[in-house]
Amino acid sequence: MLKATVVGSVWSTKRVEGLPNGAFLEVEVDGSGTSLVVFDVLGSGVGEHVLVATGSVAAAYFPDPHPPVDALIIGSIDEK
Amino acid sequence: MLKATVVGSVWSTKRVEGLPNGAFLEVEVDGSGTSLVVFDVLGSGVGEHVLVATGSVAAAYFPDPHPPVDALIIGSIDEK
Amino acid sequence: MLKATVVGSVWSTKRVEGLPNGAFLEVEVDGSGTSLVVFDVLGSGVGEHVLVATGSVAAAYFPDPHPPVDALIIGSIDEK
Amino acid sequence: MLKATVVGSVWSTKRVEGLPNGAFLEVEVDGSGTSLVVFDVLGSGVGEHVLVATGSVAAAYFPDPHPPVDALIIGSIDEK
Amino acid sequence: MLKATVVGSVWSTKRVEGLPNGAFLEVEVDGSGTSLVVFDVLGSGVGEHVLVATGSVAAAYFPDPHPPVDALIIGSIDEK
Repeated sequence: MLKATVVGSVWSTKRVEGLPNGAFLEVEVDGSGTSLVVFDVLGSGVGEHVLVATGSVAAAYFPDPHPPVDALIIGSIDEK
Repeated sequence: MLKATVVGSVWSTKRVEGLPNGAFLEVEVDGSGTSLVVFDVLGSGVGEHVLVATGSVAAAYFPDPHPPVDALIIGSIDEK
Repeated sequence: MLKATVVGSVWSTKRVEGLPNGAFLEVEVDGSGTSLVVFDVLGSGVGEHVLVATGSVAAAYFPDPHPPVDALIIGSIDEK
Repeated sequence: MLKATVVGSVWSTKRVEGLPNGAFLEVEVDGSGTSLVVFDVLGSGVGEHVLVATGSVAAAYFPDPHPPVDALIIGSIDEK
Repeated sequence: MLKATVVGSVWSTKRVEGLPNGAFLEVEVDGSGTSLVVFDVLGSGVGEHVLVATGSVAAAYFPDPHPPVDALIIGSIDEK
């Protein structure tokens, strides 16, 4: 998993069928300038520090047929 | 998912069986000079800003037996 | 698999359902400055030298439905 | 998918069971000095410009039980 | 697949259940300083030049339930 910070939303009206309820968020991966678009079902907000799982495990979180998403916020990181 | 811009098409007449209807498009990933060939079922055009899912989730979007494609345009990004 | 050293814990109270018993640990991959968050079921401690498997095989270690974890400590490396 | 050029063959007499008919070819990925070994069922030749799919979708192209190959030439790129 | 050279063994006494018979070997990927730990069922030795498949196809080589290994030596490369 990657630690990352939510930096914004991505909207897509024209898209493939079968995407679940939730949002596409843009995150910036900690300790890198890299940004990534992830799927979110937790209602994460801008500035939130989150844990991101990538690859087919993101899709497999959803019922079959699995949607074509390859990154999912699996938790919000507790601040110490 | 990656944000990317469509830069062209790729044609392949001699190819494996079982590839679905759609197009191979070349995209350039945002904020990197990297280009990638992705499969498209949305009729995306050159210059379009898109969201790309990579890995086996791209193949799993299609009915079983899943075709050997490892990147799929899952949406067009709305311009703000 | 990657060789890595455990450097800390990551806590997430607000998280998706279905995560198994175990801990999120932060590890630093040997020979790189890269750190990664991995799932651990072995009770690994800070400073422990471990073997990490990444990708969907980490999720597949757990019973169906597989949880959305993409990295798992599969062993502690024996010191010579 | 990656665009790549076939640069040679790789032979392996001592190998795991269950590998399908076909060849291991070495390819050089376009726009990078990176080379990769891929599986080929199209009879691709040295110098041919091809499209390569990577990851588990390469294995899933073959009947179950899927062979342990992680890269497959899925087409020859048409020259314009 | 990657071409790599076996450089040593990795031992892990405390490990997750379900790992198959075989060895964890450390390999150095050709043309990079990168090293990787891979699973081996071919009895490969130090100095041997091998072909490595990575990702879930490595696990899928083994009977269900697939063990959490993400890299497998699938062959020894014939010297010319």
